[in-house]
Amino acid sequence: MRVVEKIDEMRRLRHTLSEPVGFVPTMGYLHEGHLSLVRGARDENPSVVVSIFVNPTQFGPHDDLAKYPRDIERDLALLQKEKTDLVFMPSAAEIYPPHFDSWVEVNGVTERLEGASRPGHFKGVTTVVAKLFNIVRPTRAYFGQKDAQQAAVIRKMVSDLNMDLKIVILPTVREPDGLAMSSRNTYLNPEERRTAVVLHRALTLAQQLFSQGERDGEVIRQQMISLIEKEPLANTEYVSVADAETLAELGRINSPALVSLAVKIGKTRLIDNYVLCKDKKPTP
Amino acid sequence: MRVVEKIDEMRRLRHTLSEPVGFVPTMGYLHEGHLSLVRGARDENPSVVVSIFVNPTQFGPHDDLAKYPRDIERDLALLQKEKTDLVFMPSAAEIYPPHFDSWVEVNGVTERLEGASRPGHFKGVTTVVAKLFNIVRPTRAYFGQKDAQQAAVIRKMVSDLNMDLKIVILPTVREPDGLAMSSRNTYLNPEERRTAVVLHRALTLAQQLFSQGERDGEVIRQQMISLIEKEPLANTEYVSVADAETLAELGRINSPALVSLAVKIGKTRLIDNYVLCKDKKPTP
Repeated sequence: MRVVEKIDEMRRLRHTLSEPVGFVPTMGYLHEGHLSLVRGARDENPSVVVSIFVNPTQFGPHDDLAKYPRDIERDLALLQKEKTDLVFMPSAAEIYPPHFDSWVEVNGVTERLEGASRPGHFKGVTTVVAKLFNIVRPTRAYFGQKDAQQAAVIRKMVSDLNMDLKIVILPTVREPDGLAMSSRNTYLNPEERRTAVVLHRALTLAQQLFSQGERDGEVIRQQMISLIEKEPLANTEYVSVADAETLAELGRINSPALVSLAVKIGKTRLIDNYVLCKDKKPTP
Repeated sequence: MRVVEKIDEMRRLRHTLSEPVGFVPTMGYLHEGHLSLVRGARDENPSVVVSIFVNPTQFGPHDDLAKYPRDIERDLALLQKEKTDLVFMPSAAEIYPPHFDSWVEVNGVTERLEGASRPGHFKGVTTVVAKLFNIVRPTRAYFGQKDAQQAAVIRKMVSDLNMDLKIVILPTVREPDGLAMSSRNTYLNPEERRTAVVLHRALTLAQQLFSQGERDGEVIRQQMISLIEKEPLANTEYVSVADAETLAELGRINSPALVSLAVKIGKTRLIDNYVLCKDKKPTP
């Protein structure tokens, strides 16, 4: 496993990799969710590149950039175990040199949910991901369903800007009690950690209501909010039942729907989501 | 010479081209300026791709999109003569499908001159050029010095977003009387055509003043404006003496300076520019 910090070096080594190349962009502090992406990339490609870069431009002024958890040694050991070929680990100055001022922006699908809660967040994400794609030139890039809106935004960017690679979205990896894996879970104290399972419980409730025939998005949202608000440490930021592709909020659910939510547990903001699929019609 | 209209077909044929690939993006209605770019590409690359696409997103609501001149048959005959391998000639719907909404934007260097006169123009340019680069994947792309700010903007985009190609800027090609070649020259009636040479005369005056030791940007600007305003059919939109890379306006000229101007001749807006280089110091 080679570890490189410079763009030029990354480009040089890129030419030595066997095609196709699978790529997993991360912000480090790796957990099973990331590792499942690396394994997914490993299964489909003879070469696997992982980037570790805590991207400052996707954090807002009140976000947790400075305290975002980091443990490079542990990350590298985990990536080594997964047979990663190349780790690209640039500095912020390498990615954003002085006078940097070019941006990739997706409108529409970025405007609601995380985009509304975190202004500028997706502009930072799409810009850094476009840069990483240009540097790494992967055949396939892997993202987690956990960040469902991010996945939709990146798919839209790749399609709109004719980027020549395939985006692969892999399922959310969960703790045994259902909590979605996230580097931010590390912020939770034991009581908050117990409370955090409420995101998954709310999503499970949505799926139950849907299975029982409920098709009114607002009813599902309200039931989820009631459940969450019973938890003293939890504060709902948003609960959404939206079209899975455009993320337009749904009144009546008649297309594949993405149920997503952002909840503050104490001071820690967590997100999660679940795709409700249309009832299968009984075979005639 | 193959002519293709579909992105998928372009991508498929791209794989059959010998490397490196030179690329000349155009809006068609080709003149000697474009052809000099094709010849430049031909000289340096075994394969040459030219695109013809009148990009709607770089025209403002009051710009000349609808009446922008077109003559595809003539263009293809000229490109054939220059031994172009592949002409990519997509429709607007192919480049901007329904719900398209992703953009590449360069700040800073886009804000003055053409960017100030034509709001949104460069956002359209950088977006379409990024898309074309992703579709054609050239080794080198060729642009004319005639659109000096566009050249600076594209260089900045390529550098900031780590696009893996080389930008080559070739000199402005001029009519015998000095008028820079432009598809828009075709709009000029005979009297306007005679007047249009004033852009080149103003640039020549700037170079004369500079050669005589003038280093005050404002003096050069004012002298150029006086010259232009003597022409009854000419209206100065801007005259700029700016840093050649950042396009920041210069008071005192102490770095390579780009003298550029936009002038309306009747209803036709023309631009031109000239780079003043620092006096060479006598060898000690």
